Amino acid sequence: MDQQALEDVDVIDLGQIYNGAYSSLMLSYLGADVTKVEPPFGEPLRSRVEEGEPAELVMLNSTKDGITLNLKEERGKELFKDLVRDADVLVENFATGTMEEFGLGYDTLSEVNPELIYAHGSGFGEDGPKSDRLAMDLIVQAESGVMDVTGNPEDPPTKTGIAPGDFLGGIHLAAGVMAALYQRERTGEGQFVEASMQDAVYPSLMSQLANYYDDSDTPPRTGNRHSSLAKAPYNAYEAEDGYVAILCTSDEHWESLCGAIDREELADDERFASNVGRVEHMETIDDAIEEWTREHSREEVGSVLSAAGVPCGSVQSVEEVIHDPHLERREMVVEIDHPTEGEIRVPGSPIRLSDSKAPDIEPSPTKGEDNVEVYRDRLGLSDDEIERLRSDGVI
Amino acid sequence: MDQQALEDVDVIDLGQIYNGAYSSLMLSYLGADVTKVEPPFGEPLRSRVEEGEPAELVMLNSTKDGITLNLKEERGKELFKDLVRDADVLVENFATGTMEEFGLGYDTLSEVNPELIYAHGSGFGEDGPKSDRLAMDLIVQAESGVMDVTGNPEDPPTKTGIAPGDFLGGIHLAAGVMAALYQRERTGEGQFVEASMQDAVYPSLMSQLANYYDDSDTPPRTGNRHSSLAKAPYNAYEAEDGYVAILCTSDEHWESLCGAIDREELADDERFASNVGRVEHMETIDDAIEEWTREHSREEVGSVLSAAGVPCGSVQSVEEVIHDPHLERREMVVEIDHPTEGEIRVPGSPIRLSDSKAPDIEPSPTKGEDNVEVYRDRLGLSDDEIERLRSDGVI
Repeated sequence: MDQQALEDVDVIDLGQIYNGAYSSLMLSYLGADVTKVEPPFGEPLRSRVEEGEPAELVMLNSTKDGITLNLKEERGKELFKDLVRDADVLVENFATGTMEEFGLGYDTLSEVNPELIYAHGSGFGEDGPKSDRLAMDLIVQAESGVMDVTGNPEDPPTKTGIAPGDFLGGIHLAAGVMAALYQRERTGEGQFVEASMQDAVYPSLMSQLANYYDDSDTPPRTGNRHSSLAKAPYNAYEAEDGYVAILCTSDEHWESLCGAIDREELADDERFASNVGRVEHMETIDDAIEEWTREHSREEVGSVLSAAGVPCGSVQSVEEVIHDPHLERREMVVEIDHPTEGEIRVPGSPIRLSDSKAPDIEPSPTKGEDNVEVYRDRLGLSDDEIERLRSDGVI
Repeated sequence: MDQQALEDVDVIDLGQIYNGAYSSLMLSYLGADVTKVEPPFGEPLRSRVEEGEPAELVMLNSTKDGITLNLKEERGKELFKDLVRDADVLVENFATGTMEEFGLGYDTLSEVNPELIYAHGSGFGEDGPKSDRLAMDLIVQAESGVMDVTGNPEDPPTKTGIAPGDFLGGIHLAAGVMAALYQRERTGEGQFVEASMQDAVYPSLMSQLANYYDDSDTPPRTGNRHSSLAKAPYNAYEAEDGYVAILCTSDEHWESLCGAIDREELADDERFASNVGRVEHMETIDDAIEEWTREHSREEVGSVLSAAGVPCGSVQSVEEVIHDPHLERREMVVEIDHPTEGEIRVPGSPIRLSDSKAPDIEPSPTKGEDNVEVYRDRLGLSDDEIERLRSDGVI
């Protein structure tokens, strides 16, 4: 196995910040040749640090080549078309309409290269009343319902700390690119692909969408409890050194849990024999469990309950997640030695294929790192021409 | 355009609850023929309602055919191999190891059909110390850091109301299937594909992963504020009829905001001229904005600030999201008339391709709805044989 699934797929990547960059990262990890194209002053993420490479950029652009190009300059537009002429895929997540303003919209580029798969990621998509809204992840979390369903019942709506819009949007876009690549095998034609952040988040509201149809009077936010308050136990419980999540999806789980925490009398209590009864006495159940978890470390809770077959997990801190032996073992977190940033742990690929080689994770490119290689070897420009492009601010 | 990207791709779908079902839903929406295979007593989601079809199942299984099959019975295993023999893809999200227990692991099935793409979704993946952990979404949220970074600084870790593990895991798995389909065009061989929920969630912690490397002393949870408290304004603000999210990513946004809320003096205040200054005076800034938002409806805030070019969004309730005119217009929410459940709004596809027809959204199958069609027309069984399978509890 020394092949990769997307070997020889050539991707021009205008992806920036999280959404587009993640989309092309996944293509890159699957074997595509991805060339990240930044404006001469760098993509927006670079403004987050005064010098060096921002950690986000390092983590989202491994294995890619990097060049600079000014799409506002006529010469820049020409060079861009030259790049696209032989490419398979273009990924971009500018605000909807930006590429058309550059004169580089899909209509134009598909004439340059009819086999091109043009992928556009955005907050709200190509059409519809919100299509021209600015859409950072927080805005998408508000509009898509994520905030309304997160947090405690007595508190205001709360954002989730992760960036679901960027990442759900990004991976749906990458999936769309691969669908289009597969279709192109049959048709020989490229096409326009899009995925919006709000669209991509929508299905993940599934439990609450179902609550809506069940006419339940569940509050929109249930803290750490089940989203329709329909299961008990189901919560995060305080342990000696943090919190643990525990839930029971069957009466057997409940009986095992009672045994594991030395409270057999609870398993014998008829009030708690069924999930319906336990839901009625949720507070009592939660108190009994927390009385036990408070006396144990997260690790003790995990090993006792796992041995008993009860679903449980430690609430891990970000630092613990970055060093999680499980993620390390799966090469989902890979420590690289970055030329300017030193040792940094970057994400591996969540997509694993038995017959497609795992990516060799090369450090993200510095701004314009591969300018000479790409403009000379790929577009056939002379060193003098490249130097002139540089001094003219085109690259 | 009457083609679909995955036309003629035949998928056998053991996907259940959210993760596997969503993965195959995306394949189905892209044109694959998906046959959902449930045990004779139905997949676990069905136990959520006493009669009829659970809304979650309806929403995640549109356009699929549905059959029943008991994989614990010898005859069931044989029939399953017959189904897999001519299939392109198998999707399953049983606990890791379950298919091997059935005698239907990848090693066995790849002998039956070497071109088979076998896709396994799970909480923690195929290998590593946590691979045999039970993994519902809450457990994954705990272990992956989502809970630690969600909620108010003074509160315990909080889950996000959406199910990031199930849906990020599911769409990464679908993306892996498409990568393998593309590779198979070259090699003629199938392969084993996997995506775990914890792996798939990891990159979405991006802001916090970067905070870790920035050595910032930001608390793990920042409520609705920026995850590294590095931007102001950035928050959810109370309006007359709910909440609105507002943020400024540039000084221009800030100046426009001050103008829009009739507080030009704030724009002139040197303390607030730069983001660094605004961050220092975050409370003052937030109070000033909220003083204004409290006097307006979410819609008024949205139209005033959007006109001024300031990023903002309404915190929408689930009911509002289900009826969001934008999502309706984009056919991301589609009302269908389900034979038993009546009118219900199901998700459309977040993946849009210009030359692959949008899915015709057919209602999800009832349990075993297509048994006769599949077992007779596809496997060539007689009506008598099908009847016997039914009475023997095989289907």
